[in-house]
Amino acid sequence: MRHFLNTADWSRPELQAMIDDARTMKASPMGDALRGKTVALLFLNNSLRTRTSFDVGAQQLGGHAVVLSPSGGMWPLEFEDGAVMDGEAEEHVKEAAKVLSRYCDMIGIRAFPKFVDWQEDRKDKILNAFAKYADVPVVNMETITHPCQEMAHIMALQERLGSLDGKKFVLTWTYHPKPLNTAVANSALMIAAKFGMKPTLLCPTKDYILDERYIDQASKDAAENGHALTISHNIDEAYDGADVVYAKSWGALPYFGNWEPEKPIRDQYKHFIVDEEKMAKTNNALVSHCLPMRRNVKMTDAVFESENCIAYDEAENRLHVQKAIMKAIVR
Amino acid sequence: MRHFLNTADWSRPELQAMIDDARTMKASPMGDALRGKTVALLFLNNSLRTRTSFDVGAQQLGGHAVVLSPSGGMWPLEFEDGAVMDGEAEEHVKEAAKVLSRYCDMIGIRAFPKFVDWQEDRKDKILNAFAKYADVPVVNMETITHPCQEMAHIMALQERLGSLDGKKFVLTWTYHPKPLNTAVANSALMIAAKFGMKPTLLCPTKDYILDERYIDQASKDAAENGHALTISHNIDEAYDGADVVYAKSWGALPYFGNWEPEKPIRDQYKHFIVDEEKMAKTNNALVSHCLPMRRNVKMTDAVFESENCIAYDEAENRLHVQKAIMKAIVR
Amino acid sequence: MRHFLNTADWSRPELQAMIDDARTMKASPMGDALRGKTVALLFLNNSLRTRTSFDVGAQQLGGHAVVLSPSGGMWPLEFEDGAVMDGEAEEHVKEAAKVLSRYCDMIGIRAFPKFVDWQEDRKDKILNAFAKYADVPVVNMETITHPCQEMAHIMALQERLGSLDGKKFVLTWTYHPKPLNTAVANSALMIAAKFGMKPTLLCPTKDYILDERYIDQASKDAAENGHALTISHNIDEAYDGADVVYAKSWGALPYFGNWEPEKPIRDQYKHFIVDEEKMAKTNNALVSHCLPMRRNVKMTDAVFESENCIAYDEAENRLHVQKAIMKAIVR
Repeated sequence: MRHFLNTADWSRPELQAMIDDARTMKASPMGDALRGKTVALLFLNNSLRTRTSFDVGAQQLGGHAVVLSPSGGMWPLEFEDGAVMDGEAEEHVKEAAKVLSRYCDMIGIRAFPKFVDWQEDRKDKILNAFAKYADVPVVNMETITHPCQEMAHIMALQERLGSLDGKKFVLTWTYHPKPLNTAVANSALMIAAKFGMKPTLLCPTKDYILDERYIDQASKDAAENGHALTISHNIDEAYDGADVVYAKSWGALPYFGNWEPEKPIRDQYKHFIVDEEKMAKTNNALVSHCLPMRRNVKMTDAVFESENCIAYDEAENRLHVQKAIMKAIVR
Repeated sequence: MRHFLNTADWSRPELQAMIDDARTMKASPMGDALRGKTVALLFLNNSLRTRTSFDVGAQQLGGHAVVLSPSGGMWPLEFEDGAVMDGEAEEHVKEAAKVLSRYCDMIGIRAFPKFVDWQEDRKDKILNAFAKYADVPVVNMETITHPCQEMAHIMALQERLGSLDGKKFVLTWTYHPKPLNTAVANSALMIAAKFGMKPTLLCPTKDYILDERYIDQASKDAAENGHALTISHNIDEAYDGADVVYAKSWGALPYFGNWEPEKPIRDQYKHFIVDEEKMAKTNNALVSHCLPMRRNVKMTDAVFESENCIAYDEAENRLHVQKAIMKAIVR
Repeated sequence: MRHFLNTADWSRPELQAMIDDARTMKASPMGDALRGKTVALLFLNNSLRTRTSFDVGAQQLGGHAVVLSPSGGMWPLEFEDGAVMDGEAEEHVKEAAKVLSRYCDMIGIRAFPKFVDWQEDRKDKILNAFAKYADVPVVNMETITHPCQEMAHIMALQERLGSLDGKKFVLTWTYHPKPLNTAVANSALMIAAKFGMKPTLLCPTKDYILDERYIDQASKDAAENGHALTISHNIDEAYDGADVVYAKSWGALPYFGNWEPEKPIRDQYKHFIVDEEKMAKTNNALVSHCLPMRRNVKMTDAVFESENCIAYDEAENRLHVQKAIMKAIVR
């Protein structure tokens, strides 16, 4: 039994095989790989694409999705082993995981950071606890990384570019009025490196550099493909010759949980918006964003609606790659 | 591709064909017209009948419904073209519509007025934005009109009366402690006129007359059928000789968003309740309400539970007509 | 048409036949007894196991579940006959029940007590109103009793012990920081007596004795099987020679709705926790809890994770017995 928690746990050929299967299903969507199977989808945070695409995907494979959420009535959960549960939590994650494993054939988990203490959030406790205790495969539906989004992005790039080896991939920080999760940023950098692209992380200052776990993983994967990870604070240099521009906003880790002093810093960098002027410096780059995206804050309407933007294809591919992931892990 | 936003967009024969199909399916409910299809049902407001009947209907046709709601975790949406999205909205309706179109084969929208400014609410922005941007058919599950309810009502009347031509149809305002949406009232008046009935709008004062858009549409349709729309503030005259009495409460448009001064006005008209004394003046009229209905406020128990009340049949018919609507528009 | 509101309404052979069917389906889960059928599941309170297991069970029988909850957008309901509905409620339960009966083939209800006035809560008004007005079978998904849990518990005991006749069954109160529902306690005592076990209710003082309705029912059923119900406040005596220990916390009825003065009383009895020392006094008893359970408050980790604990099997059996219940009552 294998979980799908992070792409780092899977080899590039294994991931490519899933993407190839996804392309086959994009052409011919119906199947019966999940006939008589149920997947539980546990959402501790908002979702539109993930909730819809997993549900539709399970259905198209002959299976069934049960969507669970706190607003839909989950009990508050305890995550510590050996806890004396005299606080708010009514149920230990061990029971939730083991009981869902008796009813369902897979468990998907969406659990964003709490945004108080990055040292706590970086443990990815909820996802890892379900993976530890569940007797069925667990899928990461976005926690502090977002591997399903990575797969959809790579699939969309391959649909346009074919081989990605040696392409210049720029992950650019953009402004957003709120400090957001680093999950998609962490994921984008890792998957670009893994699939042979030359990754550049563009961000305003060193405070916006991602957690070393992801920097190290991307560096290692880039090196295996003969490349190096570049970290840049220079917009012109980063965009110059880029083949792919991926936009995302995130909060600076040194201010994690202490966002007031970060606000005036972040507010200085609204010019990181992806616009036509910057795109003109690229090698006619493809551009994308994971959605939802604040228009004219992170990316101008002109860029988003250009032929080079693959955001809708990437969103659609969520459906196809998730079906391939479910087929690969559900027994 | 055609949306189902308002019955005014469809001809009477087209609507009748759907009702005829609904009658066939009422006798024989299972089918496969939606085999392998998914309908997304987006609820921005409460629902019991609509949520259940669309879900069951999709299932009975071999399809699948995905129910989305804000309490189920939707992102707040932006509706303005070209907006600089630096406020609360995290996602533009354009992306929500286009991405749902990639996953699903139809989108249902329930979006009640905000009750602040009728000039804004009458634009029906959410429904129209989805219709504008979606690449799949959009169905109105109640916004400022409620066309699915209209269809279920006409079906229920035809089951009892056969032809409706020339029947006297009275839409009566009734008291309710809160100022409600005019949607079902707008719809009832329009569909009665379209299906050849002689429509009367009974309401306490001119302040309770519906928006001119719906008055004009009903007048035009009535005229095409050789009738005239009557607006009355006289209970006895309105009920006299009625064949159908449809009860509904709504807030007075001149006080829209400024409800405090309307409260003492509304409170004077509790006697508009549909009771046996008023019903005795009719031509043994059928009576109905869209539900949910406050018993003994809008209608007495005695009337509601009489043989002449078709409210449950109308509610049941929601299932059947919505299946016919989905069959007519999903490709 | 029969509802499944309480096990007291069904004979022991009828219940045993359902459990036997559940055991068959545990070995071979797929079926088509609900082909083309829909069950509406109305949750007025939180759920993980019940929501998931009913949904999965309906699916495995070829049917479909529609999950409804207030957070999912139900209208507030009125329960009094003849009410003038000028308060908060927008819909009478009669309409909710009758309309759901038009769309669905069964209605499940979860409606916990309001914890203000036990004399009110013990009327089980919501469940009984649905049972009164629905035209399809109604199932109790936990109100002031929890019959589906009872069935799962008996099935799990029979899997380990075979015949239960003459076994010593101890329902022990345990500490919990909040005053909880008596539903599972009421149910456990009744079903133990009904299935031929010798029931003991162990609780700190007479204030924690359950409602006489359930004490009387358990006493009557015990007597029919040649046994007597024992009520004990002595831990050693109760555990001595026990074959089954069932743990549950509940609030003391004399303090119902007036919980402040009960708190210091309850806090004196934390030593009622099920631990290895107490279990050593038993006849190598099986032990269980309905879940969710506060670990190391109600039961120690050591006991919960021992071979003698059947809580996960009991939880799994919810799926199987509920399928058998649905098969028995849905037409």
